[in-house]
Amino acid sequence: MYSLTQLQDLINQNLQKINFNLQPVELYEPIEYVLSNGGKRIRPALVLMACNLYNDNIDIAINAALGIEIFHNFTLLHDDIMDHAEIRRNNPTVHIKWDENRAILSGDAMSIKAYELISKSVPSKLPAILQVFNQTALKVCEGQQFDMNYELKENVSIDEYLRMIELKTAVLISGSLKIGSILGGASEDEADKLYEFGRNIGLAFQLQDDLLDAFGSIEKFGKKIGGDIVKNKKTYLLIKAFELADKKNLNLLNELISGNSHAPDEKTDKVISIYNSLNIKKITENKINLYFQEANNWLEKVNVIDNRKYVIKSLSEKLINRTY
Amino acid sequence: MYSLTQLQDLINQNLQKINFNLQPVELYEPIEYVLSNGGKRIRPALVLMACNLYNDNIDIAINAALGIEIFHNFTLLHDDIMDHAEIRRNNPTVHIKWDENRAILSGDAMSIKAYELISKSVPSKLPAILQVFNQTALKVCEGQQFDMNYELKENVSIDEYLRMIELKTAVLISGSLKIGSILGGASEDEADKLYEFGRNIGLAFQLQDDLLDAFGSIEKFGKKIGGDIVKNKKTYLLIKAFELADKKNLNLLNELISGNSHAPDEKTDKVISIYNSLNIKKITENKINLYFQEANNWLEKVNVIDNRKYVIKSLSEKLINRTY
Repeated sequence: MYSLTQLQDLINQNLQKINFNLQPVELYEPIEYVLSNGGKRIRPALVLMACNLYNDNIDIAINAALGIEIFHNFTLLHDDIMDHAEIRRNNPTVHIKWDENRAILSGDAMSIKAYELISKSVPSKLPAILQVFNQTALKVCEGQQFDMNYELKENVSIDEYLRMIELKTAVLISGSLKIGSILGGASEDEADKLYEFGRNIGLAFQLQDDLLDAFGSIEKFGKKIGGDIVKNKKTYLLIKAFELADKKNLNLLNELISGNSHAPDEKTDKVISIYNSLNIKKITENKINLYFQEANNWLEKVNVIDNRKYVIKSLSEKLINRTY
Repeated sequence: MYSLTQLQDLINQNLQKINFNLQPVELYEPIEYVLSNGGKRIRPALVLMACNLYNDNIDIAINAALGIEIFHNFTLLHDDIMDHAEIRRNNPTVHIKWDENRAILSGDAMSIKAYELISKSVPSKLPAILQVFNQTALKVCEGQQFDMNYELKENVSIDEYLRMIELKTAVLISGSLKIGSILGGASEDEADKLYEFGRNIGLAFQLQDDLLDAFGSIEKFGKKIGGDIVKNKKTYLLIKAFELADKKNLNLLNELISGNSHAPDEKTDKVISIYNSLNIKKITENKINLYFQEANNWLEKVNVIDNRKYVIKSLSEKLINRTY
């Protein structure tokens, strides 16, 4: 079995082998920039791990793994335009470093490049993995649109929010696992179990991200605490707080969100103290644990001896606890 | 053999059958808008015609044909953002009718939808047609980037210009023919002949478009004469004129292009009179005829009885003469 570090190295080596030193340089330079800009390579590692559950030869899944990593980075590139994000992984985003046209077009080329790599997978499995990938990719777009819609929507329910993060974040994790397992030789039934495992891990992962924004340490989280709160981002925590707040807290939350009368740090402190009074941290942790438990139930059903599952289980724990 | 009109009807019927009445409506509504906004369906018709050269059953190529039409419309949608175009086929472009974020994201979803349809082609041919399509799609992006580069570049040579229009316009025409012929059962050698036929037709088609902008009638051309001239677009005509102009005409051209001292109609008239003095119309017509002749040479080599080639030959003539 390959460890996470071994897989990350393998993925990075293979990404570097792809030649983006091509003409026109204006098109290919941003692609190289984005792909060399770090990232933990979680999704391609999951492709390879899922393949490795069923097969000692993971070379058969490397092209699909690279394709999914490039697709993921393409969605980040275009999301950053739409969200007017200026920084990604401590570097200027493509539309800031160059311009919006180059960000649009190099993103388009990345998505084609993703398909090009996936298409190099073994022909007998190609229709099956393309079906999974196409469905997954469309859902990621749907999730991004719901996310943008919810910025403007006044009342977003917990169910709507969970569906949105499932589409925007969880399905690419579950799709990676499903594609890797199909390439490794899993039956459809087995591949579906891994899909469900990944869906639940993906949901838990996003809720953990929401939680860390308010309750994490800056060292572990890697970005400033309270970013979501300052931006009034409708996270699980905020939606839950609105759901549970009494009239007094509701008024206070509305005042904090609507006005510009509070300095960012003061606003963050006040919102967190409402979260504390409503037990939001515990409620969110419970929800994360529920998804994590559900994920593990699905992984247990996977018909592979336990010690082959060790790497994938260990990565899923890291994703939730962010201990690395 | 199917006629162009029969194929266009078939394509439109099948496009209408695709369900875009999906959630989130903000993502899918622009796709339906773009696809119901007319268009002559030339590329998918070429997919079906090329299939029909080798096979009486064209149903086997319909999904690939639809995928290529959706991909083509996706590129127009994103090009319109990049070019700040406000009107497409007499209707507001997506980023004008809605906003830029929806234009970016619904375009992304269209390109995935294109792949989804192409992926439904017969599994045994899937690796071959995906390879053609991926290469073609990347080239279209490269062509758009060169086109944007050349807007800012002072001296664009005829060779650079021809390479740009080959990438931006011709390869999707030749790729359509190659994919259709592969699905119909053509050998690789045969498919390559059709690719070359299409490449030359595509080049002739774009030069004809350049020519009509200056020398066409508004009825035939469907848009105002002189649009390229007013915008200083570096077409074959303008680049050739710069190449052939003596010092006096060179100064005059530079003055017409650099200044805002001329009303659009006056500028158009003056540039056209320079074109006339340099014989640009005839030179361009000769170049078009050269490509058209070269295209026909390739079509003649195609190993199919002549009367099966009638429909495809007739469409290529229409594309150059725009008699419909």
